[in-house]
Amino acid sequence: MLRIGLVGYGYWGPNVARNFGGIEGAKLVAICDASPTALARAKRQCPGVRLTRNAEELLTGNDIDAVAVITPVASHYTLARTALLNGKHVFVEKPFTCNVEHGEELVELAHEHNLTIMVDHTFLFTGAVRKIRELIEEGALGNLYYYDSSRVNLGLFQHDVNVIWDLAPHDLSIMDYVIHARPEAVVATGEAHLNGHADVAYITVYFPGNTIAHINVNWLSPVKVRTTLIGGEKKMLVWNDLENDEKIKVYDKGVQVTNREGLYELLVSYRSGDMWAPRIEQTEALKAEAEYFVDCVEKHESPFNDGAAGLRVVKMLSAAQQSLKERGRAVAV
Amino acid sequence: MLRIGLVGYGYWGPNVARNFGGIEGAKLVAICDASPTALARAKRQCPGVRLTRNAEELLTGNDIDAVAVITPVASHYTLARTALLNGKHVFVEKPFTCNVEHGEELVELAHEHNLTIMVDHTFLFTGAVRKIRELIEEGALGNLYYYDSSRVNLGLFQHDVNVIWDLAPHDLSIMDYVIHARPEAVVATGEAHLNGHADVAYITVYFPGNTIAHINVNWLSPVKVRTTLIGGEKKMLVWNDLENDEKIKVYDKGVQVTNREGLYELLVSYRSGDMWAPRIEQTEALKAEAEYFVDCVEKHESPFNDGAAGLRVVKMLSAAQQSLKERGRAVAV
Amino acid sequence: MLRIGLVGYGYWGPNVARNFGGIEGAKLVAICDASPTALARAKRQCPGVRLTRNAEELLTGNDIDAVAVITPVASHYTLARTALLNGKHVFVEKPFTCNVEHGEELVELAHEHNLTIMVDHTFLFTGAVRKIRELIEEGALGNLYYYDSSRVNLGLFQHDVNVIWDLAPHDLSIMDYVIHARPEAVVATGEAHLNGHADVAYITVYFPGNTIAHINVNWLSPVKVRTTLIGGEKKMLVWNDLENDEKIKVYDKGVQVTNREGLYELLVSYRSGDMWAPRIEQTEALKAEAEYFVDCVEKHESPFNDGAAGLRVVKMLSAAQQSLKERGRAVAV
Amino acid sequence: MLRIGLVGYGYWGPNVARNFGGIEGAKLVAICDASPTALARAKRQCPGVRLTRNAEELLTGNDIDAVAVITPVASHYTLARTALLNGKHVFVEKPFTCNVEHGEELVELAHEHNLTIMVDHTFLFTGAVRKIRELIEEGALGNLYYYDSSRVNLGLFQHDVNVIWDLAPHDLSIMDYVIHARPEAVVATGEAHLNGHADVAYITVYFPGNTIAHINVNWLSPVKVRTTLIGGEKKMLVWNDLENDEKIKVYDKGVQVTNREGLYELLVSYRSGDMWAPRIEQTEALKAEAEYFVDCVEKHESPFNDGAAGLRVVKMLSAAQQSLKERGRAVAV
Repeated sequence: MLRIGLVGYGYWGPNVARNFGGIEGAKLVAICDASPTALARAKRQCPGVRLTRNAEELLTGNDIDAVAVITPVASHYTLARTALLNGKHVFVEKPFTCNVEHGEELVELAHEHNLTIMVDHTFLFTGAVRKIRELIEEGALGNLYYYDSSRVNLGLFQHDVNVIWDLAPHDLSIMDYVIHARPEAVVATGEAHLNGHADVAYITVYFPGNTIAHINVNWLSPVKVRTTLIGGEKKMLVWNDLENDEKIKVYDKGVQVTNREGLYELLVSYRSGDMWAPRIEQTEALKAEAEYFVDCVEKHESPFNDGAAGLRVVKMLSAAQQSLKERGRAVAV
Repeated sequence: MLRIGLVGYGYWGPNVARNFGGIEGAKLVAICDASPTALARAKRQCPGVRLTRNAEELLTGNDIDAVAVITPVASHYTLARTALLNGKHVFVEKPFTCNVEHGEELVELAHEHNLTIMVDHTFLFTGAVRKIRELIEEGALGNLYYYDSSRVNLGLFQHDVNVIWDLAPHDLSIMDYVIHARPEAVVATGEAHLNGHADVAYITVYFPGNTIAHINVNWLSPVKVRTTLIGGEKKMLVWNDLENDEKIKVYDKGVQVTNREGLYELLVSYRSGDMWAPRIEQTEALKAEAEYFVDCVEKHESPFNDGAAGLRVVKMLSAAQQSLKERGRAVAV
Repeated sequence: MLRIGLVGYGYWGPNVARNFGGIEGAKLVAICDASPTALARAKRQCPGVRLTRNAEELLTGNDIDAVAVITPVASHYTLARTALLNGKHVFVEKPFTCNVEHGEELVELAHEHNLTIMVDHTFLFTGAVRKIRELIEEGALGNLYYYDSSRVNLGLFQHDVNVIWDLAPHDLSIMDYVIHARPEAVVATGEAHLNGHADVAYITVYFPGNTIAHINVNWLSPVKVRTTLIGGEKKMLVWNDLENDEKIKVYDKGVQVTNREGLYELLVSYRSGDMWAPRIEQTEALKAEAEYFVDCVEKHESPFNDGAAGLRVVKMLSAAQQSLKERGRAVAV
Repeated sequence: MLRIGLVGYGYWGPNVARNFGGIEGAKLVAICDASPTALARAKRQCPGVRLTRNAEELLTGNDIDAVAVITPVASHYTLARTALLNGKHVFVEKPFTCNVEHGEELVELAHEHNLTIMVDHTFLFTGAVRKIRELIEEGALGNLYYYDSSRVNLGLFQHDVNVIWDLAPHDLSIMDYVIHARPEAVVATGEAHLNGHADVAYITVYFPGNTIAHINVNWLSPVKVRTTLIGGEKKMLVWNDLENDEKIKVYDKGVQVTNREGLYELLVSYRSGDMWAPRIEQTEALKAEAEYFVDCVEKHESPFNDGAAGLRVVKMLSAAQQSLKERGRAVAV
């Protein structure tokens, strides 16, 4: 039985609490939040769980095996570090850390102490992303040409980070999961209109070969869009996460180039066939992730969304941040 | 009566011929194309119009007042130059020229000879773009935050230009028309997957103040998208050109930031009201443009889509091309 | 403080319990269900509420002022009757009763004992239906031509009633609420394919004048549809309840007929203007309804969705049932 | 070479002229229309074709083998009858005739004179309807449960017929083509709001077994809808004719009922799998139909859309008309 303490009972914390509280093999034993209102809510929603405003108590407590850090990114490093130094496994909200150095130190620390870090890249546990990975793994799409995502809506403005750190971790972690290659360089552009943090941003990620990725994030859009196009040599797909059914549509469409001998010009031909929307598993992603965390800790196995994965995302975020500041200069990852 | 000669009866030429042939005040007198097949088609579709394979004859002919240049971009400069030197007004397909120098020379030449150049930015004559301009002019949107366009589909690959020169002129000319400020710098990223020309590209345009524009162009998309989001301080709109009705939706939505005295944090508040889809005029854009050309020539007035407008678009295209080559380096316009 | 007992903790009961439990002026004191599983769930979700498998106890208890009857329709009459005879106000799930006689008796009984009956036509408390009523009341649509609704999806098959009794009460209660006239006759057609109960049905309701209503209900549709078209002399609207935003679109479109003197033919002309999607209130309908119930009881006011309203819906359902059996014979209401 | 005379150069006539004029094996030799404006248009669009205002001349002319009757339905019978009596094959616009007797007489006459009648049910030649028929024929859907179509839009009001005779022939001819059984009875409801002809109507068609069909036709809808749901025992499909791509979506969804021995209740279970949008042929339907007409005449073969097929549709229309008048009384076909 993995005894879990949770720090941060704000917007996302209650979901994490509910899921860790509801699975076999784990027990939520304590919740910490600095806000009395949050604690009052925790009391109502999690009867029987110990409540505290003192994180230290939870991070060092003898009755706790693992800590879930569900706080703003600025505090991830300090909380996770203390937890690791006190022999606790760590489940930490995305983005992993607010800079590369902190992420590297935590990964190192977990390795030294033989502890598990899992970064909460929840999307990797959805039926849609699992299906996309499956399609790419089995070669259905062929060589990847591009990954192009739009993730825009009105608000919610964050006070401490810009729209890149808020919305791009989703796509960057998905790209990290479904594209095998490691990124070479990042180009980011964008603009701040309201509170000094960029609220509109565009990120290009260059991969080896000719795979290119692009992410459009925006806090100032009148409509919500969650659409990703993935183009491959053999097939192409559209993932619209706002659809209830048919989230993923696979198109048997493509372009071929033939270089007929003796011809100076390349011949481009188009192929257009059926469209197919595979059934997507409807499981709750966060529940599956919580079970996977418990399982990884028990079996001493490293999760695929471990600290190293979280760090790879932070490296892309940091490169994007730097590029944004320099109006699109390509920053190596 | 403006006597018009048309060079280039390929994909778009027949539409130009039909529209100049069908309006008052103009008469299509000659069509030139190097291809016998194209000429046979012209014979069938434009009975009574003189046909020739010799452009020189048309560009220098005494019975011709204006020349419509509807050929691939590489030949625009030479054809338009000869026409101007022979005292003909010029209607030229977009993009205006394939480099800045050529565009500047043509603008200069037209000025010297007191002739009209109109660049065929057809979209500026659609009901949708006119309505967008009207909404911006009257201040309905407030200060502009961003212009964000997706223009993607499968093919048609061009053999001589990349996807930027093929698809971006539409958005760049629209931006030039509806945004009053002049662009400062362009950042472009992209990749070529098939015939050596970039088939996926992302362009950011920085304007003075904090207006930012972004264009997503792609020849390898399984679905066709023609959607532009325009965000302003007061209102935001979505233009979906693939909709039959309700092409433009104006959202009474917005974000305000209040800096209450004595508070360290900015307060961000959201406003959400009605949506409104104004009726859009359904006139044929190319017909309106042809009439406008005849009108401008007759009245010796400079069209808003004159050579200078075409040149501004070519400058942005050239900057994008350069930035693309250097993986996103910001290129001043 | 209105003390409420709830009978029936199945699919919908927990929602009713949560809402009556969460408002001021009411207190949920007891829950009854025959199923031990349901009671176990109630225990978890409603700590502190008395649980019982004996409805009689709850219907006659001295500490209860009002009873919420959230059971299958077959038991509504008996439960509500006992409650009324014991001086309790009644909140009863739709459809009100399974025949007209039962409904009439309950209305009579409530009247005699000066008690309130409210039928749970939840849709009447949604922002969308309120907005539709408002638009009709203020004359924005003009005289009503038609009300045409599609309410189709896959399942959930009911074992005791057909698709008409399951899905049509929504539209019939909405029609009763927004159309002032009383229906004249009902025509229904349909077919049973699986368990002997009609799973596909089409209902036409004739109103005085030339207003006509139609409801398409279907348990065997591969896609979920919740779309209602309402056409009026002046304007027309589309209500798509599956949209997150823009549930209601009002079209400034119409048709006029002119009978010019001396002409044999009527001239029909079309008008097409803007479309407008008013902002819809996002309140939880059931919460508003629960508060309204408490308020009506307190003030001794008759709710608009009282027993008489429920009875009008049952009359239409009964007429539809009869017409269905006779393959479309018009049955007077 | 089949020499064709066309009567009626109004809205649809030019399309028929263009297609018969453009195929091998046929030659359009004469066009008749009473309106000088129509003839002037014909002169421009069909150079070289003889024009006349005298139908008699065309129907009896020696240089004509087949007559295309593209006039309002009221004149179909007289024109087609004369053509047949003069030994001409007949291609006639839908609906075939305005009553059953006329249709029967024409079928009889064609039979006696060994001539071909084809009724212009153009939809049967679209890729979408062909694909639907193919799916039903090969058993992909299993036994048919229902066919449910919505065909609504604003206008175009007809002066001589109601919305049933205008819009329902499409669906009735498609049903006749894809459903093998013959209809038993028709129920229709509806209302006239403007010029005395029903502009809103709902038609139910009962087939043997438990297949049921329903058609919703409306000239007063603010939005255009062309959606048909077809439900079968094994699979279900949605045909949205307004989609550019993916007109047909086939859902691997269904409901099964199990009657487990010893159980009083039927168990209903749901199945939900992939969705699949087969590629649809993009050929022009009217061209294919014109070629098929020429082919049938040449080979002395009876087309599947012959007079008998047209008559079956007229029988359903007449039954619907009668039922409409009697507010939904089931009228046997």
